[in-house]
Amino acid sequence: MSEEKKVVESRNQVLLGEADGKHKPESPAVDLENVHPADGADHLENLPLEEQKEVVRELPLEDAAEFIAEMEKHDRAALMKELSLERAAGILGEMAPDDAADVLDDFDERRRDLLLRRVEDEDALEIERLMRFDPETAGGVMNTEVMVLEQGLTADQAISLIRKAAHDTEIPYYAYVVDKDEKLMGVLSLRDLLISRPGKALKDMMRNQTLITATFDLDKEEVAHLISRYNFLALPIVDHEQRLLGIVTHDDVIDIIHEEASEDMLGMVGAGTDETIDTPWLRSVMMRLPWLVVNVGNSVVAAWVVYQFEGTIAQMAILAALMPIVANIAGNTGHQSLAVMIRQLALERFDRRKAWGAVYREAKIGVLNGLAVSLLVMAGVFFLTGKGALAGVMAVALGLDMVVGNVAGASFPLILKELGRDPAQASSIFITAITDAAGFFIFLSLAAMFLL
Amino acid sequence: MSEEKKVVESRNQVLLGEADGKHKPESPAVDLENVHPADGADHLENLPLEEQKEVVRELPLEDAAEFIAEMEKHDRAALMKELSLERAAGILGEMAPDDAADVLDDFDERRRDLLLRRVEDEDALEIERLMRFDPETAGGVMNTEVMVLEQGLTADQAISLIRKAAHDTEIPYYAYVVDKDEKLMGVLSLRDLLISRPGKALKDMMRNQTLITATFDLDKEEVAHLISRYNFLALPIVDHEQRLLGIVTHDDVIDIIHEEASEDMLGMVGAGTDETIDTPWLRSVMMRLPWLVVNVGNSVVAAWVVYQFEGTIAQMAILAALMPIVANIAGNTGHQSLAVMIRQLALERFDRRKAWGAVYREAKIGVLNGLAVSLLVMAGVFFLTGKGALAGVMAVALGLDMVVGNVAGASFPLILKELGRDPAQASSIFITAITDAAGFFIFLSLAAMFLL
Repeated sequence: MSEEKKVVESRNQVLLGEADGKHKPESPAVDLENVHPADGADHLENLPLEEQKEVVRELPLEDAAEFIAEMEKHDRAALMKELSLERAAGILGEMAPDDAADVLDDFDERRRDLLLRRVEDEDALEIERLMRFDPETAGGVMNTEVMVLEQGLTADQAISLIRKAAHDTEIPYYAYVVDKDEKLMGVLSLRDLLISRPGKALKDMMRNQTLITATFDLDKEEVAHLISRYNFLALPIVDHEQRLLGIVTHDDVIDIIHEEASEDMLGMVGAGTDETIDTPWLRSVMMRLPWLVVNVGNSVVAAWVVYQFEGTIAQMAILAALMPIVANIAGNTGHQSLAVMIRQLALERFDRRKAWGAVYREAKIGVLNGLAVSLLVMAGVFFLTGKGALAGVMAVALGLDMVVGNVAGASFPLILKELGRDPAQASSIFITAITDAAGFFIFLSLAAMFLL
Repeated sequence: MSEEKKVVESRNQVLLGEADGKHKPESPAVDLENVHPADGADHLENLPLEEQKEVVRELPLEDAAEFIAEMEKHDRAALMKELSLERAAGILGEMAPDDAADVLDDFDERRRDLLLRRVEDEDALEIERLMRFDPETAGGVMNTEVMVLEQGLTADQAISLIRKAAHDTEIPYYAYVVDKDEKLMGVLSLRDLLISRPGKALKDMMRNQTLITATFDLDKEEVAHLISRYNFLALPIVDHEQRLLGIVTHDDVIDIIHEEASEDMLGMVGAGTDETIDTPWLRSVMMRLPWLVVNVGNSVVAAWVVYQFEGTIAQMAILAALMPIVANIAGNTGHQSLAVMIRQLALERFDRRKAWGAVYREAKIGVLNGLAVSLLVMAGVFFLTGKGALAGVMAVALGLDMVVGNVAGASFPLILKELGRDPAQASSIFITAITDAAGFFIFLSLAAMFLL
């Protein structure tokens, strides 16, 4: 569904205070009539499944389709599975094809086929076509309801076509102008059409226009970057012959950016990248457990390092008390540089030279912060224990491990990126392993050399 | 600047491959003429400061203003400080007042006054008015160039007004309709105007319209949530008497969401919340150091716990090797639940009951993951050392500390939120301190009880 339509519908929505779904109308079918789809979806999500079914049964198909399209993936799947095939297919038929394709993704193949057979042929074909695009690409997020104009038309012809279309359905911000082979030739806004001489041909209105498009196989995060960089309302998506397939719009971009930020933060610590507090808890267990097991493996390295110095520790147990300070603070500095780098990779186009240059910057930060914190800790240890050599060893180990942390934190995501992997994935786990192992090794070997 | 204008300008921009600024024209002033502001800004940022000055001196004021408005805060401030007062004031005068206010924020008060005195009176007043809004609120991000129509006009009168305005400047998606006291009465899109009967009064076109607005003092993140929830292109910002002050648009929302995600990820580990790899490294040192010092304080707690068991460790140094495994894995689970909760708070309106319910969910995840990982680690320790009691103590300590981690990770941001603080700030540092101290305490006291 295009945004223009949503915007128009929003005119009739409930007051804001009721948007959180706490307001329960006695007869939902009546009260829900003029509600914004986002509020309707919220309302449904807050009802028990049985009541959701009842409400959806009483709603006009079109409203049901709009509400369900706006629901959370998990709630949506649960509800759709409860509906009769007929009702579900009717709802799918009313949805924008891209929303319908998303909803169908939640079903197994058998039920998906059963449903699609009940949707009108033309809609079903369109939905199936959309489902073939990789959901991580432009094709997977684009919507296909666009206003297409032939370039031979004049401005006034175009306006009257748009006016006519606007009466039954939504009106776009942009009209897409194609040649006779359906190749995209340019984009015109309502403004361009309104201010031009009525008889002017569309073809002539697009002179000097540098058209920006993306192909269907571009990563959706790249699409989001393009749209947000240029403040577009929508970006046309084309095939490799420059034929228009659909558009990605500003509201899709917001969803992609939110998703990307979640993936980074959750992926970093080895949680499921699409986890929310609504994820069934057993699924969360299954998503997090593999990374915890990886972490066991990583921790064994640090433990093994300490184990090599068992004798040293037995003679000087205070080392065991000081050791976590080294690991903890160096781990923290490592995470600081990790966070800066992951955000950098999320916000800007990857520039190899600039990115690796930032590792040098982090090294400098590590040296200076390392000096400052080491001196503080050295003074503290000396004050508490009166042992100058111990304080010195502690300071040197901490300072060195902090530099290790900063350099590792900044380079780890870059290495993943260069390997074509997700730069955030499990990075926190590996940075901790590195700073732990390095910290323990430096601290305990210096202690073995100078303190015994 | 409204988006429509940006969109129109984008028609003339350079090809995409050149947008990364690597393409250096020999005579920049000529090549930069038809460039999109985002690309122009990139180009400037990639030049040495001296050359930036030169380019800006040769550019028409209007282009210079647009490029500079799109530059990174840090680069922009450096460049603006290098320009003569006259040139800088001229550029400010050409900027949209909200952009000018942002640029002026980088100057000290004296230079700001010097500059404003050189800007035309009317513009200067508008800029000063905007600078008085808190930058974290709707007023601080809104732009003020909006199309306002009196509600007594008819649809065709409105269209011709818009057409006229479009010739000199940008055309908005929405026109804002006010009564004679300048109170906002409704919003009309170009579509509404195009499809309505020409003689129809605007007043009558807004029947049944439920107007959604935000007051100037609403937190900008709340504004972003509203706009992205309803897929608006723009949200009108009003004063407490419902008089229109400006609008926040979809591209502002994208910036706010990016900022919010950065603040969370960087704040969590105690880096500067606006740090990027372009931040001067000494500034980064100063922003991170305070939290590292806090972390020294936190780490001392864990060290103190270990120190209480100095005797135990002296007798059984292997404890020192196993101890980091407990702390590390429990810290990891704590960070997993922390990340889920911070994203939750970023994505959805705060629902106290639901949020605290999620702590219970995390506790269950902690118990099950704790069981699984403990059993694994118990088997490993038994296999490697042959000591059943040691393996048992290790497993119990690890399992318990993992539950502590999950519960602490989920509740810490909620406690900060309830206290009116930023839920992410330094949360990683405190979670690590909690899981370290708890893990060492449980492990070493069980060891002292059962192993010696």
